Amino acid sequence: MRIRDYGIIIGEMQPGRLNRISDVPGVTVGHCTVSNEKHHTGVTVVMPCADNMFARKLPCASFVLNGFGKTCGLVQVDELGTLETPIALTNTLNVGRVSDAMIDYMLKVDPSICSVNPVVCECNDAQLNTITERVIGKAQVFEAIDGACADFEEGAVGGGAGMVCHGLKGGIGSASRVIQADGKDYALGVLVQCNHGRRLDLTIAGDPVGRRIESAIGQCDKGSCIVILATDLPLSDRQLRRVVKRCSAGLARLGSFIGHGSGEVFIGFSTANRVPAGEGDIITLQTLREERIEDCFRAAAECTEEAILNAMVSAETTTGPTGICAHSLAEFLNHV
Amino acid sequence: MRIRDYGIIIGEMQPGRLNRISDVPGVTVGHCTVSNEKHHTGVTVVMPCADNMFARKLPCASFVLNGFGKTCGLVQVDELGTLETPIALTNTLNVGRVSDAMIDYMLKVDPSICSVNPVVCECNDAQLNTITERVIGKAQVFEAIDGACADFEEGAVGGGAGMVCHGLKGGIGSASRVIQADGKDYALGVLVQCNHGRRLDLTIAGDPVGRRIESAIGQCDKGSCIVILATDLPLSDRQLRRVVKRCSAGLARLGSFIGHGSGEVFIGFSTANRVPAGEGDIITLQTLREERIEDCFRAAAECTEEAILNAMVSAETTTGPTGICAHSLAEFLNHV
Amino acid sequence: MRIRDYGIIIGEMQPGRLNRISDVPGVTVGHCTVSNEKHHTGVTVVMPCADNMFARKLPCASFVLNGFGKTCGLVQVDELGTLETPIALTNTLNVGRVSDAMIDYMLKVDPSICSVNPVVCECNDAQLNTITERVIGKAQVFEAIDGACADFEEGAVGGGAGMVCHGLKGGIGSASRVIQADGKDYALGVLVQCNHGRRLDLTIAGDPVGRRIESAIGQCDKGSCIVILATDLPLSDRQLRRVVKRCSAGLARLGSFIGHGSGEVFIGFSTANRVPAGEGDIITLQTLREERIEDCFRAAAECTEEAILNAMVSAETTTGPTGICAHSLAEFLNHV
Amino acid sequence: MRIRDYGIIIGEMQPGRLNRISDVPGVTVGHCTVSNEKHHTGVTVVMPCADNMFARKLPCASFVLNGFGKTCGLVQVDELGTLETPIALTNTLNVGRVSDAMIDYMLKVDPSICSVNPVVCECNDAQLNTITERVIGKAQVFEAIDGACADFEEGAVGGGAGMVCHGLKGGIGSASRVIQADGKDYALGVLVQCNHGRRLDLTIAGDPVGRRIESAIGQCDKGSCIVILATDLPLSDRQLRRVVKRCSAGLARLGSFIGHGSGEVFIGFSTANRVPAGEGDIITLQTLREERIEDCFRAAAECTEEAILNAMVSAETTTGPTGICAHSLAEFLNHV
Repeated sequence: MRIRDYGIIIGEMQPGRLNRISDVPGVTVGHCTVSNEKHHTGVTVVMPCADNMFARKLPCASFVLNGFGKTCGLVQVDELGTLETPIALTNTLNVGRVSDAMIDYMLKVDPSICSVNPVVCECNDAQLNTITERVIGKAQVFEAIDGACADFEEGAVGGGAGMVCHGLKGGIGSASRVIQADGKDYALGVLVQCNHGRRLDLTIAGDPVGRRIESAIGQCDKGSCIVILATDLPLSDRQLRRVVKRCSAGLARLGSFIGHGSGEVFIGFSTANRVPAGEGDIITLQTLREERIEDCFRAAAECTEEAILNAMVSAETTTGPTGICAHSLAEFLNHV
Repeated sequence: MRIRDYGIIIGEMQPGRLNRISDVPGVTVGHCTVSNEKHHTGVTVVMPCADNMFARKLPCASFVLNGFGKTCGLVQVDELGTLETPIALTNTLNVGRVSDAMIDYMLKVDPSICSVNPVVCECNDAQLNTITERVIGKAQVFEAIDGACADFEEGAVGGGAGMVCHGLKGGIGSASRVIQADGKDYALGVLVQCNHGRRLDLTIAGDPVGRRIESAIGQCDKGSCIVILATDLPLSDRQLRRVVKRCSAGLARLGSFIGHGSGEVFIGFSTANRVPAGEGDIITLQTLREERIEDCFRAAAECTEEAILNAMVSAETTTGPTGICAHSLAEFLNHV
Repeated sequence: MRIRDYGIIIGEMQPGRLNRISDVPGVTVGHCTVSNEKHHTGVTVVMPCADNMFARKLPCASFVLNGFGKTCGLVQVDELGTLETPIALTNTLNVGRVSDAMIDYMLKVDPSICSVNPVVCECNDAQLNTITERVIGKAQVFEAIDGACADFEEGAVGGGAGMVCHGLKGGIGSASRVIQADGKDYALGVLVQCNHGRRLDLTIAGDPVGRRIESAIGQCDKGSCIVILATDLPLSDRQLRRVVKRCSAGLARLGSFIGHGSGEVFIGFSTANRVPAGEGDIITLQTLREERIEDCFRAAAECTEEAILNAMVSAETTTGPTGICAHSLAEFLNHV
Repeated sequence: MRIRDYGIIIGEMQPGRLNRISDVPGVTVGHCTVSNEKHHTGVTVVMPCADNMFARKLPCASFVLNGFGKTCGLVQVDELGTLETPIALTNTLNVGRVSDAMIDYMLKVDPSICSVNPVVCECNDAQLNTITERVIGKAQVFEAIDGACADFEEGAVGGGAGMVCHGLKGGIGSASRVIQADGKDYALGVLVQCNHGRRLDLTIAGDPVGRRIESAIGQCDKGSCIVILATDLPLSDRQLRRVVKRCSAGLARLGSFIGHGSGEVFIGFSTANRVPAGEGDIITLQTLREERIEDCFRAAAECTEEAILNAMVSAETTTGPTGICAHSLAEFLNHV
């Protein structure tokens, strides 16, 4: 059950076939979930392509709307405008371990590497997880990578296992839109790890749902939301930065005002224009004409809004080690 | 008639007495409007204080969400974290002339000046104005400054005379919120010059009003929105930057996804902690504890949303020199 | 007489034929100088190409090392990564008037324009000029543009007329370097308007010349340095930003530590990859392979250092209206 | 033996008593060095204070001159303007493990933590170290922290063990300057981990030493330079950012032009104005008057230049596992 199964349509653009980030050809997603009495946590990995991406990097950019967060890898992404590893999403205190495991993975992919820039994002799952134990390491990261597929699960899985969103159960969600350029169809998709927002602020398609829900957690817009955006449109890193900025509109329409404690980090990459390994000083590439970027902006906003809702309706009610219970949004919506 | 007179309440926080940026003590606003067969244009000036602000600068910061715009003065604001002139809002091609007039004004205020940084923002009013004629200069800027007051007019006035917002008549609007700190009331207010958005996207308090309106202009989210935010809370420049970033949530809730052509520039200043002219290398000042900034964020989002609506309902239907007609939102709302 | 005529060779790379920014094909520079009892001021215009650059914009980026300055136009340059007007350099209080004159010029070039982003940089010439009178306007800007040529003058001309650098006479200077890519020669050149630095810090090719000079002005590193960089290498806006950052090395080697009062603004553009006006959503362009950017970095540093010295040795001793005299560096160097 | 022992005086300002970053009261530095047949690597930790800095954070800012690097922790530093952990310096592939160890350390200091932002910087020591084995973990980080002192060692120690600088042996170095404000002495100090630069470019106090040295490694300005700056002056995060930007002048004067492969990351913190844990929404703090910041700028440049030279003359000639030998600069200088 996704949000559209409840008759709720976000925006006006056409979703892709899977309505997931994996509608962008080559993009897959894998999870490793640790769920037991003490833990609801995990790691999710977005794989931008199937081949050696260190050798053939992807155009990439980030935008940090609220930097109260511990995402690593952005310094180099912003300087060079490229991504050279998969992107991992986990909890706050696991960033170091997951980052280290990503190095293990890249050394396996390409043993010639002596410098590589893992990108690891995080949200805090301390409400539902014994976070200080840091149970995510190499085995979990490799399991997530090995299981990566296009038709991946959403909800309380992987890095989303311990998320809380608008006082309800958050998690991993995804959505996509089709964009046409020169008569050809392209895809733009996002994946969110959503852990932000206050219950009272939750608004779905204009309906202030949150005000009618009693059994929610917490009072403030804490916790962070990570958005990973992918497209096969040939966007430059500067254009990608412009596009991911619009993810904030999706958050705002659901009622968030980007709270103090909520690290909002948006990262976008394009699977077009991968930097060729070969020879030659001058490289030929393609780029979207700037005036045609409007649809990407709209798609980024729509996808983010829908992906968060997909995460929330997919995520099952979860009780943490201290007894705190995050209910599923699905309990409060009537499906069509 | 403002948006609350239509029974529409934005957000949950308490507005200030005037529900305007001028609820921040000392802040006033003046307009000069040029409205005739060929022109609907003008200049609006936000006066942050009554005394010589070059001698006693104000903490200030900006955030450019979409830099497709010609605002001048931000390089220095961002470096030094201070504002040393009033802020003028006008049309795109008048920035140079208004900037020059602001220098005239500052030289009058303080003849010792040999370097000063005017801040001038702009939106494009070419749909309703013969913009290339640039009719705003020194006389108009001085008229706006001379007329500055706390109970200023909203709508199609000053820099807002030629604005178009979501295909309807845009303009100048304002709103404010009360914030408590250490048991004392402070004000946070914004003033917008709104010229952005597509008709179909217009959503008011969750209601997709835009889809029901036929007689609107244009199709795309073009044109820009300027937000000036003021507070008497002692915020540092870094904190002000964080606060003004949240203005984007107000825009998004009304349906904007921050279109390509829409330069969104947000500038915030505090009337507390004005840099003293005196002696001494070390200055004592105050600042809001960071964890208490949440209310400022919420207020920034609420005020921006409400100020845009105030601009739209206040602005009268206007026909430009080429016959294009921008209707007032007031025509489409039923007041309570 | 330029610095090489004194036997002083900066760096190891080969200069272009003119050793000027105009070694980049299509780039020309024009000056209008106002020099009389009350004024030593003017305007210099860098023309990036001969045809309508609004219709076919150039990749462009800026880096502000010290934002204590009033440069206008950078908001849009940074957002869109393009330049659509010539770049003017003038004094601090003339920015508005010159910006307005640039609009006049662009409206003449392309009467269809209703929005355009003039880039105007400035340094403060108040020591040698009655700056508050603002004598630079449309006539002067047009004169500078009309006189633009490849073999332009350096020294106390145009926007450099009233500059003071390391306590000596500053002004406009230029230099260039040849860079090879795929076996072909490209040019990278800079033009500086230098108005920064303290006398005691001045160091030329390792020689602390400044300590031996008595008759210098002022004590602190005030005043600003503007660097305009051009190349016909196909650099993206991100790459241009990386390249212009290295201009700071040239400043530092001459002894500057980028003083508080010294607004250091660097702007770079490429004459390759001009955005085509035509049809088509996807554009093909070229870019330099990132690992090959090293020579551009070195060239940016070398050119900046040499251009400042060219400005200083070319500039004649100048006495301002208050009797302050800025001596030429040429008085203190022995030519070969 | 430090660079002053060779009769080489950098700059004109007075060093502190130790001429180290630890002249800032409370700041200490510890190393753990791993040096054997396969490894020359380690970790260095800068301890900003002796008490719980998570509870009482320090004002902090960063500036990334070249982001080709993997430093983690800057997203939050830039957002909140505070530092809440010690700063660790290690090699590129150890960042994850060291970051994780820093979490262990902070959990020991304050078991109530469920979210913390370790700052870990890195340079690549692959020339002298079997970097892929990542031998630095919790034990090494704790050893470095436990050994932290004011009179710490410089050269090929800690994170500096495997560094190469201008083709010679690099490492860890430090320097400080005394700054007066309101008649009181303050200290500003830096610590560098230097791993950048080309041999031919090396210039010491104007002398192109590098051109006379034969036995150097490599050809290009690769490798990175990290600069940590501390002061007990009450600088705001914005001021700290301005100050650390000037570190680049120190690099440039030694001949670097900030090469493509050289990630240059500068981080500054103040030990004044630590955020109090207590009650109250409004906090009183102090700040340096902006016009008085000039000495900090000069000190940052001087300290960086001198600290790099101190690292280089202190570092002993080192041969890596592949037989590459990095000679000590001390071999090529004659002491006084």
